[in-house]
Amino acid sequence: MERVDHIGIAVKNLDEQIKYYTEILGLKLLKVEEVPSQQVRVAFLDAGNVKLELLEPMSEASAIHKHIEKRGEGIQHVAFGVTGIRERMAELKEKGVRLLSDEPGPGAGGAEVAFLHPKDSFGVLYELCDKSKKGDH
Amino acid sequence: MERVDHIGIAVKNLDEQIKYYTEILGLKLLKVEEVPSQQVRVAFLDAGNVKLELLEPMSEASAIHKHIEKRGEGIQHVAFGVTGIRERMAELKEKGVRLLSDEPGPGAGGAEVAFLHPKDSFGVLYELCDKSKKGDH
Repeated sequence: MERVDHIGIAVKNLDEQIKYYTEILGLKLLKVEEVPSQQVRVAFLDAGNVKLELLEPMSEASAIHKHIEKRGEGIQHVAFGVTGIRERMAELKEKGVRLLSDEPGPGAGGAEVAFLHPKDSFGVLYELCDKSKKGDH
Repeated sequence: MERVDHIGIAVKNLDEQIKYYTEILGLKLLKVEEVPSQQVRVAFLDAGNVKLELLEPMSEASAIHKHIEKRGEGIQHVAFGVTGIRERMAELKEKGVRLLSDEPGPGAGGAEVAFLHPKDSFGVLYELCDKSKKGDH
């Protein structure tokens, strides 16, 4: 885990929260995009050394919708920036950590992402986020 | 908010989790200390650009104990590194953000810390963390 790429935050109303983060907290909005495969609308904010990723569900099929139903709005995951995501997934599996998928999936910004089982990380949902796009396969 | 200093994680058993973060995730343990004023035992891990702060309650008086009782183990707060914490608190108050205390209190590593009301940040508990120790008073 080389670094933390971003902190993912489940939100009900993206526009309202972008206003809070930019006007009140003074962070810079980097971009807004939709990730249909995960049924989320996403805003990235620049918090200096890391990004904050605000995630608004596009439908009830989204994991973010389920998070908000169960736990309310708030931090949903922390993403480690990695290279060679498939190798990192294999290493973790070998160490006994369960992953939520066997293969990486598409994330925001064209990244490949995978999630560790939050029970194995004592309640924290960690994402692996690989933006190298080369993969190792 | 210049940068994210650390991500605070509520844990039941510090030693067990230090083992997970160092041996499985490969992060470096920076230090372990007690913060009696907040009734927590704290471990800092180096995640490259930010630190992870594992917080184990020392008694039921700790906010971390309450967090675990209510929400289970997991991410409890995100700390922005700031300088001039009193000025930053005053600016936020002026913008209508409630703070959990009128004055900064002592945090781990000799920092001065203060918390924004999580309802004003849509369910996220943000800390201001000032390590300059100079203050602005």
